[in-house]
Amino acid sequence: MRGVIMHAPRDVRVEDRPDPVIEEPTDAIIRTVATCICGSDLWPYRGEDRVHDQPMGHEYVGVVEQVGEDVTHIKVGDFVVGSFFASDNTCPICVAGYQSRCVHAVPMGPLGTQAERVRIPLADGTLVATPGYPDEEIIPSLLAASDVLGTGWFAAVAAEAGPGKTVVVVGDGAVGLLGILAAKHLGAARIIAMSRHADRQALARRFGATDIVEERGEEGVAKIKELTDGLGAHSTIEAVGTQESMLQAIASTRPGGHVGFVGVSHGVSIPGRVLFPAEVHLMGGPAPVRQFLPELISLIWDREIDPGVVFDLTLPLERAAEGYQAMDERRATKVLLRP
Amino acid sequence: MRGVIMHAPRDVRVEDRPDPVIEEPTDAIIRTVATCICGSDLWPYRGEDRVHDQPMGHEYVGVVEQVGEDVTHIKVGDFVVGSFFASDNTCPICVAGYQSRCVHAVPMGPLGTQAERVRIPLADGTLVATPGYPDEEIIPSLLAASDVLGTGWFAAVAAEAGPGKTVVVVGDGAVGLLGILAAKHLGAARIIAMSRHADRQALARRFGATDIVEERGEEGVAKIKELTDGLGAHSTIEAVGTQESMLQAIASTRPGGHVGFVGVSHGVSIPGRVLFPAEVHLMGGPAPVRQFLPELISLIWDREIDPGVVFDLTLPLERAAEGYQAMDERRATKVLLRP
Repeated sequence: MRGVIMHAPRDVRVEDRPDPVIEEPTDAIIRTVATCICGSDLWPYRGEDRVHDQPMGHEYVGVVEQVGEDVTHIKVGDFVVGSFFASDNTCPICVAGYQSRCVHAVPMGPLGTQAERVRIPLADGTLVATPGYPDEEIIPSLLAASDVLGTGWFAAVAAEAGPGKTVVVVGDGAVGLLGILAAKHLGAARIIAMSRHADRQALARRFGATDIVEERGEEGVAKIKELTDGLGAHSTIEAVGTQESMLQAIASTRPGGHVGFVGVSHGVSIPGRVLFPAEVHLMGGPAPVRQFLPELISLIWDREIDPGVVFDLTLPLERAAEGYQAMDERRATKVLLRP
Repeated sequence: MRGVIMHAPRDVRVEDRPDPVIEEPTDAIIRTVATCICGSDLWPYRGEDRVHDQPMGHEYVGVVEQVGEDVTHIKVGDFVVGSFFASDNTCPICVAGYQSRCVHAVPMGPLGTQAERVRIPLADGTLVATPGYPDEEIIPSLLAASDVLGTGWFAAVAAEAGPGKTVVVVGDGAVGLLGILAAKHLGAARIIAMSRHADRQALARRFGATDIVEERGEEGVAKIKELTDGLGAHSTIEAVGTQESMLQAIASTRPGGHVGFVGVSHGVSIPGRVLFPAEVHLMGGPAPVRQFLPELISLIWDREIDPGVVFDLTLPLERAAEGYQAMDERRATKVLLRP
């Protein structure tokens, strides 16, 4: 089969890889219908994470082609959505809703979903089948549920976005934008998007942002305070992962407020002398997308949300390298790949 | 009047200071009935915080002697308990329960409650009157409510201690010990105290600890994991404030669990590469003790809790220096001073 390999920073190629096979009785093999490039794939692409001959991709929707003998819920022929951690969905951590930290969690990244076929460990716990084969028009939205929507949703829930709340969103990538959509759906009264890119501001407004702040760092925080009677937001979504964005998120939040952080941490270190007096709730990490998948699939199936519009470039899998380049150069927010 | 001054590290003296006067119409003047030395007073005592000719103390119970013209709820003659931040108790931050970050908050530390009289700003918001003049036997407990009990209580609430939960307490000072009492009162199923001092272990057990772990750092974390099916605690109270104790608290907590941190941060910096994968809730800072005072006074008044037993040395105010020395040398957990 064909699949994406990142040999080194900026060296992305689509190559022949061995077809995956059932290795454990709890595995399934899916034929990938759509996959995509994640903002976090840009860390190794830009040389900020080490990379060497790495199969890429951890987002996927597809059709089940084969299941191991212990797989009972998922059937051959199901159209399924899964997330970037395989999880048993039965351990105490999963039951509490933190499937990304399942005691048997398997990260999908090393398996490489930017490929024609993928092996999914713990298939019964990991995969959620849609009610039927989806219309073509909602496939991008279902794919978004696999990571960026689920991650933005988790960030909004972790930030306790809800009725009457003012929500600040730091980061205007796909996750931040879908955090806006989630906050809107959760009933937030006011959603302030921190963005300085016109195209992303437009999408932010489409998803429910009521205000845009272009300033960053201390100036951005001052602007947020100005918009919130000097108090700061009730809820802040951090969807970047840098020291600047994390400190901006904490400083934008009022005492007693909540920060939901999902930007993969790069060089972040939160000083106690900042966090202690800030008196904000912090919750974040790799999103337990599995927790939200049934609800998200249902909302997408019923056309209540359209997260798939974050994909502004669709390419055949064979042209994956162009997709990486477009995202790196910010010509695309999020690139969908069709095998 | 007589009051404590710390002139420099380890140089504590009781001296004549000017009697406080009403400065704002919202002030009250109280005659201090009991005050005490805080674990955090040891930071400057040991030279780890800068100090120069500083009036000391921020914990107090006393009798109201005088009120400003805008004070309406608090009356002359009331026996009152207050906390280490004066707060208006009416701003949006106070209403949300975070009075230590009131938009008009005034720290009591600089006013120095280790003295015969104290000026209390924002008296109506800050002070809570007891139902009458208390019996002598519960005065230490009411004084504990002013800070150490209220802080331990906040930590337990921030850590979401409750029925069915396993709670770990890092730190066996007065705050950690009273965090145990709070967790017990909140219904925790199991409370693991991390302590290596026999006298404090005994008090921990008296307050409700079911297990004692003497190991610290990585060994301590391994022991906690061993006691919790490899998962970690649901709730962890951090009551020290060092890098080691904060990382120990985070690592002792299961994904999705809660860390309530109240140890005043000294040299803490939480790496994103630790916090992100840990996926725990963090909440802490200066405790909004005012939120809990009515409930705590009621529990003490009804003899349902006896936090005053943390005071293991009582001295006249004039001998405050001996009290500092005893706490510094760990001969006393907490020292009560009677003016």
